[in-house]
Amino acid sequence: MEIQKILHMVGGLGENSYANNSSLQRVAITKVKPIVEKTILDLYSSMLTETLGIGDLGCSSGPNTLLVISDILDAIDWGSRRLKRPVPELKVFLNDLPGNDFNAICQSLPNFYEKLRKEKGEGFKSCYISAVPGSFYGRLFPKRSLHFIHSSYSLQWLSQVPPELTSSSIKGNIYLTETSPPLVYKAYLEQFKRDFQSFLQSRSEEIVLGGKMVLILLGRRTADPSSTESCYIWKLLGQALYDLVSRGLIDEAKLDAFNLPYYAPSVEELKDVIEKEGSFHPSQLDTMQVNWDGSEDGDEAVNSFDHVESGLNTAKIMRAVAEPILVSHFEAELMDEVFRRYGEIVAEHLSSERTKHVNLLVTLTRRG
Amino acid sequence: MEIQKILHMVGGLGENSYANNSSLQRVAITKVKPIVEKTILDLYSSMLTETLGIGDLGCSSGPNTLLVISDILDAIDWGSRRLKRPVPELKVFLNDLPGNDFNAICQSLPNFYEKLRKEKGEGFKSCYISAVPGSFYGRLFPKRSLHFIHSSYSLQWLSQVPPELTSSSIKGNIYLTETSPPLVYKAYLEQFKRDFQSFLQSRSEEIVLGGKMVLILLGRRTADPSSTESCYIWKLLGQALYDLVSRGLIDEAKLDAFNLPYYAPSVEELKDVIEKEGSFHPSQLDTMQVNWDGSEDGDEAVNSFDHVESGLNTAKIMRAVAEPILVSHFEAELMDEVFRRYGEIVAEHLSSERTKHVNLLVTLTRRG
Repeated sequence: MEIQKILHMVGGLGENSYANNSSLQRVAITKVKPIVEKTILDLYSSMLTETLGIGDLGCSSGPNTLLVISDILDAIDWGSRRLKRPVPELKVFLNDLPGNDFNAICQSLPNFYEKLRKEKGEGFKSCYISAVPGSFYGRLFPKRSLHFIHSSYSLQWLSQVPPELTSSSIKGNIYLTETSPPLVYKAYLEQFKRDFQSFLQSRSEEIVLGGKMVLILLGRRTADPSSTESCYIWKLLGQALYDLVSRGLIDEAKLDAFNLPYYAPSVEELKDVIEKEGSFHPSQLDTMQVNWDGSEDGDEAVNSFDHVESGLNTAKIMRAVAEPILVSHFEAELMDEVFRRYGEIVAEHLSSERTKHVNLLVTLTRRG
Repeated sequence: MEIQKILHMVGGLGENSYANNSSLQRVAITKVKPIVEKTILDLYSSMLTETLGIGDLGCSSGPNTLLVISDILDAIDWGSRRLKRPVPELKVFLNDLPGNDFNAICQSLPNFYEKLRKEKGEGFKSCYISAVPGSFYGRLFPKRSLHFIHSSYSLQWLSQVPPELTSSSIKGNIYLTETSPPLVYKAYLEQFKRDFQSFLQSRSEEIVLGGKMVLILLGRRTADPSSTESCYIWKLLGQALYDLVSRGLIDEAKLDAFNLPYYAPSVEELKDVIEKEGSFHPSQLDTMQVNWDGSEDGDEAVNSFDHVESGLNTAKIMRAVAEPILVSHFEAELMDEVFRRYGEIVAEHLSSERTKHVNLLVTLTRRG
């Protein structure tokens, strides 16, 4: 099945939905808020425009979707007051793959608009939000129609499993591990480079000169692509799946044929593609760490760390993200068991080592 | 409950869905195709633009949604060839109320794009379709962002039940009938005027000078607002509902409290609002008739008219349109019985008289 149709969060409002298991992404969005604010203010000071085009690429569907937009609008509000300028007309485009639950977003818009006008006043009555289904690895918008682009937790997903990989390439695993042969590293890296290059190239046509992007994606701090911080969470999911193989619930060949369309790049790899593509100037490149279970480190001061609970929460968060792609390959009925077992395995790992996600954060300006 | 949340077609692909019961609307779209073509060609000859903004307002969700867009793109293709001009970038906005099934549209887009590029070539690779949830009785788009607006079978739905109506205003009916008191006519007409005026006013800001609209809505040819051609189909639905009252399945007071947020205007009433609002010049104002059951008159030459089958088909078409609004007020479990009985009542009526829907068709140009 095409990646376009399977790569999306679990929709709806059920127990396993992304809407109810999105604390990890929320923590990142909150941490990034000051950077979004600064970027919008820079942008806003440097250009006068009647209409401001804003895109959130890989918006998913849940409370975070409109939280991101809300933060961006806060920044515009603040910038307008500071610069004593009227708020421009705002075109906001929410993009994700066609399989995303756009209905849930659409249905939440009337309340969002009402709250916006109540809290921010009439200046924000000209805010027009639309949904744009499609892959951000190709063109999504007309030429020079956007001023600010945001993308959070999406660019680590590849447009396809690297075509060079075969069933036996990563036998026993679903993604890179420390035992993967160099050819597998190379295949993943090359696919990431092609995809990220396409992303930048498409955006370079859609964004105005001087326009800005804030991108957050999962990545790593080390040169080694098989580092624990970028691979271990998937290695453990592989273990949960292989556990079902050993119990006869999943066919081994079927699992061997499954490879994750995912790559967690290093800062250097990211920089390399940005420089080669050439349309954007990176003004900021940072890393930040987030706990697997979406908790914030401050939380621990109050409650001591419970690895069983943390394992459970991590499994829930990963399920909201990974279930659609797993059920495109495995039986949906197995998912409860896969993620129950995964929770146990993650808890066991967390009892000895608290691995964290590494987020890469990059701010780019379209060269003029 | 707000009209915004209940006024939409039956979603999904089930037996009672709009997607499977939309032949009536398809017939109208097909009949209007030459007018859309001519309007696009006129527009296209009169302005040069890098990006063409197209809006379909009240797009619903089903095969007709992309059929309309397909017809518009055909016209652009034809115009480009005739005028030997490259196809401009196309921004296509599909609008409906937030409760519309946008997911179904989004999921059908990858195939639509593929077919478009295959059939029409690379010239159409810059076509960007997005979904815009919201009421078209208010602003939906930034200033001067559209060139062509289409709306089919939507403007007869009001933004609300006329507030002047009370439970007893149309006791025994759900919409106007020949026995309704003059105050009821007046309340419906005034609500229609306010709504259509808001529609035109909002569009006048969003469309470029010289931009064009093609609007199709249910209406009537007579001055009398209680004419059979505009009211009888709802009178019969009222009868079906009252039949359930007499069998103790629906509470009479509950039915009395239900009034349809709908008005079928005359050509004169439409013209009157257009003139008073003043932003648009009407270049064409026509009426056309369509069979209740969505069949085309040519069909009869082959098969003799079967009033039972026609009643059944009419009930299906009306169910796809009216069920969401009925279930906001009545129990959903009753719908099978309501529409079964409705089919019988319609069949009985059709056995003595073949009433048809009257469609109003108007082409408007934004005054410059």
